[in-house]
Amino acid sequence: MPNERVPTRAGVIEAAKKIAAILPPTPLLPVEINGTPCWVKAENLQPIGAFKIRGAWHRLTALSDAGRAAGVVAVSSGNHAQGVAWAAKRLGIPAIIVMPHDAPQVKLDATRALGAEVVLYQRPGEDRDAVAAAIIAERGGTLVHAFGDPWVIEGQGSAGIEIAAQLGHEPSRILACCGGGGLAAGLALACPNAEIYPVEPEGWDMVGQSLAAGEIVRAASDAPKTICDALQPIATKPINLDVLIGRSSPGIAVTDDEVRAAQRYAFSHLHLVVEPGGAAALAAALAGKVKLDLDTVIMLTGGNVDPHAFAQTIGGAN
Amino acid sequence: MPNERVPTRAGVIEAAKKIAAILPPTPLLPVEINGTPCWVKAENLQPIGAFKIRGAWHRLTALSDAGRAAGVVAVSSGNHAQGVAWAAKRLGIPAIIVMPHDAPQVKLDATRALGAEVVLYQRPGEDRDAVAAAIIAERGGTLVHAFGDPWVIEGQGSAGIEIAAQLGHEPSRILACCGGGGLAAGLALACPNAEIYPVEPEGWDMVGQSLAAGEIVRAASDAPKTICDALQPIATKPINLDVLIGRSSPGIAVTDDEVRAAQRYAFSHLHLVVEPGGAAALAAALAGKVKLDLDTVIMLTGGNVDPHAFAQTIGGAN
Repeated sequence: MPNERVPTRAGVIEAAKKIAAILPPTPLLPVEINGTPCWVKAENLQPIGAFKIRGAWHRLTALSDAGRAAGVVAVSSGNHAQGVAWAAKRLGIPAIIVMPHDAPQVKLDATRALGAEVVLYQRPGEDRDAVAAAIIAERGGTLVHAFGDPWVIEGQGSAGIEIAAQLGHEPSRILACCGGGGLAAGLALACPNAEIYPVEPEGWDMVGQSLAAGEIVRAASDAPKTICDALQPIATKPINLDVLIGRSSPGIAVTDDEVRAAQRYAFSHLHLVVEPGGAAALAAALAGKVKLDLDTVIMLTGGNVDPHAFAQTIGGAN
Repeated sequence: MPNERVPTRAGVIEAAKKIAAILPPTPLLPVEINGTPCWVKAENLQPIGAFKIRGAWHRLTALSDAGRAAGVVAVSSGNHAQGVAWAAKRLGIPAIIVMPHDAPQVKLDATRALGAEVVLYQRPGEDRDAVAAAIIAERGGTLVHAFGDPWVIEGQGSAGIEIAAQLGHEPSRILACCGGGGLAAGLALACPNAEIYPVEPEGWDMVGQSLAAGEIVRAASDAPKTICDALQPIATKPINLDVLIGRSSPGIAVTDDEVRAAQRYAFSHLHLVVEPGGAAALAAALAGKVKLDLDTVIMLTGGNVDPHAFAQTIGGAN
């Protein structure tokens, strides 16, 4: 389906207003990384534990009355699922969420607890977009794509408007955990003068590879495993890449070990619970893969992690 | 030594101004406990991971030039230690901290990393106040008591000034994790119309018992073990009890199991790392031991917990 609407900075500002009306700003916390003071934006402290609540709210509130009555369908490894389910519950909209069978149990449980109907698919193997399309063909409803949607991009970008207000000015650069590129594109629109660094798991750095190629590059069928369950879409979408090409800095890839080190750092130094995919940007900063300065902001995008997995990650420290 | 200075609300307001000049307010986060929306004050997100930075800063900045040159001595299980060490480092004041030999390793390490000299004592057995007095007799310096000090009480109370500013009005009640009663007394001064509930570990509820008796009650020599390492002083002090008698609600005691459940709740629902002693107030709320309402604030006072202990607590969930 063509996206006729193009995401804009005006749309991001409108999204920020809508979101400020229902959610307090997440904290922008001072941190010192490798001797350089900078900032972390604690989106893991959102009510659903992830920034995805932003795009979902902006998208669902933009539906017509008929659209609301028909319901929404989303595909997600878990955080977008919770964002859509949260917004749908609050607006009284029926929601069906297509999730991978191996999504973290906390994310499956939380999505169901928010009242959404969950349909599982096999990852890898089944095409999750096809599963969603089949549901819509049979039962109707509006697809709320996790990143390839103009309202979703604008909604995620509202975090950038908040950051600029909290800092008193635009950040110099933002390190953004990146799956399909919805957040990175939204931040690029929100903060037109900031450098945007998409940070992805090694082997799943499809935005970075697509930026380098100037066209969409799909993940290899034998792409390695990653602990960043939230950051492994097969490919970005044209609507995301169109915003990012010529605007984004080159992508950065991080290893699972770097991600675990970042989770441990957040635990012991920041006293924050961050899931693997939510720690990717911090991992890039700690590993010295991006220059930092006083006005650099590192996005901590989510905190939904199974307790046993988290216990293993931090219990293995030192 | 007599405390000639009495803590006052004016002193709390002065402390709040001094602290606002160097530290951003910690987040006041919305939470829903057993169906009732209320608030948590995330003092675990302070740079040292605990509210103790407040009292230490107010106390050390009040020293004369001669007092600064002579240095400070503190006794602490770890969070006050870090608060004093942090303030001392920033002000260029030499600091000696008397800590129990079984303090969490993260607290010992962090205190030393801040440049303080750490002197260990045996808990139980040795009188930590006597150890500190001997050091001062031999080497000089000012004792910075963890709770029985007017500046420390005022400094801790600055959290209440922040809360009132964040809410837009005084809270209806505050649930405060309580060791010696420095925070509870400070909050009572800061928010004269709020109900103050000191929450302590079972068997170490010396403030609660002292409030009930109308005089200071010391911990039994066979008091049970508690996981709340931060909340086990032998007794409160007159300066604390004088503020709290007739002003504080009765104390509340929580069990280790209730505290662990609160740590798990903070992990999975709030995405915050909270140490046992820092989770006591949340434990009382979750266990239904205090009535909650829209204007109730639950203090999360610290997040300094050994990773292995935390992994055990959350890994044992479900």
